[in-house]
Amino acid sequence: MSDTAELLELSKEAQDLLFRDARTVGAFADEPVTEEQIRAIHDLVKYGPTSLNTQPLRVTLLRSPESRERLVRHMAESNQDKTRNAPLVAILAYDPDFHEKGEEVFPGRGEMIKGMFADPVGRESAARLNAALQVAYFLIGIRAAGLAAGPMTGFDAQAVDREFFADGTQKSLVAVNIGTPAEGQPPFGRLPRYDYTDVVTEL
Amino acid sequence: MSDTAELLELSKEAQDLLFRDARTVGAFADEPVTEEQIRAIHDLVKYGPTSLNTQPLRVTLLRSPESRERLVRHMAESNQDKTRNAPLVAILAYDPDFHEKGEEVFPGRGEMIKGMFADPVGRESAARLNAALQVAYFLIGIRAAGLAAGPMTGFDAQAVDREFFADGTQKSLVAVNIGTPAEGQPPFGRLPRYDYTDVVTEL
Repeated sequence: MSDTAELLELSKEAQDLLFRDARTVGAFADEPVTEEQIRAIHDLVKYGPTSLNTQPLRVTLLRSPESRERLVRHMAESNQDKTRNAPLVAILAYDPDFHEKGEEVFPGRGEMIKGMFADPVGRESAARLNAALQVAYFLIGIRAAGLAAGPMTGFDAQAVDREFFADGTQKSLVAVNIGTPAEGQPPFGRLPRYDYTDVVTEL
Repeated sequence: MSDTAELLELSKEAQDLLFRDARTVGAFADEPVTEEQIRAIHDLVKYGPTSLNTQPLRVTLLRSPESRERLVRHMAESNQDKTRNAPLVAILAYDPDFHEKGEEVFPGRGEMIKGMFADPVGRESAARLNAALQVAYFLIGIRAAGLAAGPMTGFDAQAVDREFFADGTQKSLVAVNIGTPAEGQPPFGRLPRYDYTDVVTEL
């Protein structure tokens, strides 16, 4: 246990569950992940902050072998077997027209949000940034549920979008396998992290 | 307290600290945020997952009034006063050449990472996505430290980059005010969140 852990208000158990002991996992035990669990995760991480509360993240859960295979065929080979065998897989995507729902998420500011993100380039950039924040909240939520996540960006996003979102209503960012880790997972030690002084500057 | 909270392994205290009771804050008490606290936050959230462990996030802490003013002049007016008055402000940015440090973060795969992100368009997209995940981990870490965050995207990112990163070594994504909330903060109720069925589909 790191000395700095004592300086945080979050309990050590929670620090371990969400960050210190949590690992990306590629093989899972044969235990289902229920809709109820995903609902509980959503009901927690929906509170994570986004720009003007826009919440552009959309989630597609792939449970059936058929739906799973539609994703697997567009993935990097190293991601195929683990995605095929995970108890549940989610495609995490963004709504490229999130700005049209501004009034739902920020009552009284709907028109402002619509205007602010009228430019498609700025809108896409904002959608990707805010949905990525929500992807991270979702990964934390999976761990909060006592499950392990296997997030992946190794897939052909344009092909996945044509496959699942041919109407253009979503654009995929990350796929994530969800489940209880198989015994002995992951089989290798943790990769190195940057030290504070490698990445933080004070002015 | 939501019923679904019971379904999670994370304690209710931790759920409240990180998500349910946590709020974006614009005004702070007159209490410093120490380097030690930021080190403790980093030492926790550095474990959050990124693609191939690339960790593209870089953090610039603005403590002096002079450095603060260099940021404030490029911000939307609504963000200026709160940024000027926050105990600490961080510019959260990404390293556009993160792929050159592949060997440091994934020993034995340095050349693979270099090659995989050789294309500047794909590299920028990956940098922005993964740094945004790390921005979210950092926001969670601020809350884990018992502090409140005020993340902001309302600034001229290109101007901020010219001001702070004229050598092109970083590109800004989000600025965040950090501190202990002032009494009565925030002065308004929580904005609505999407329900599960609004954003989740199962196939």
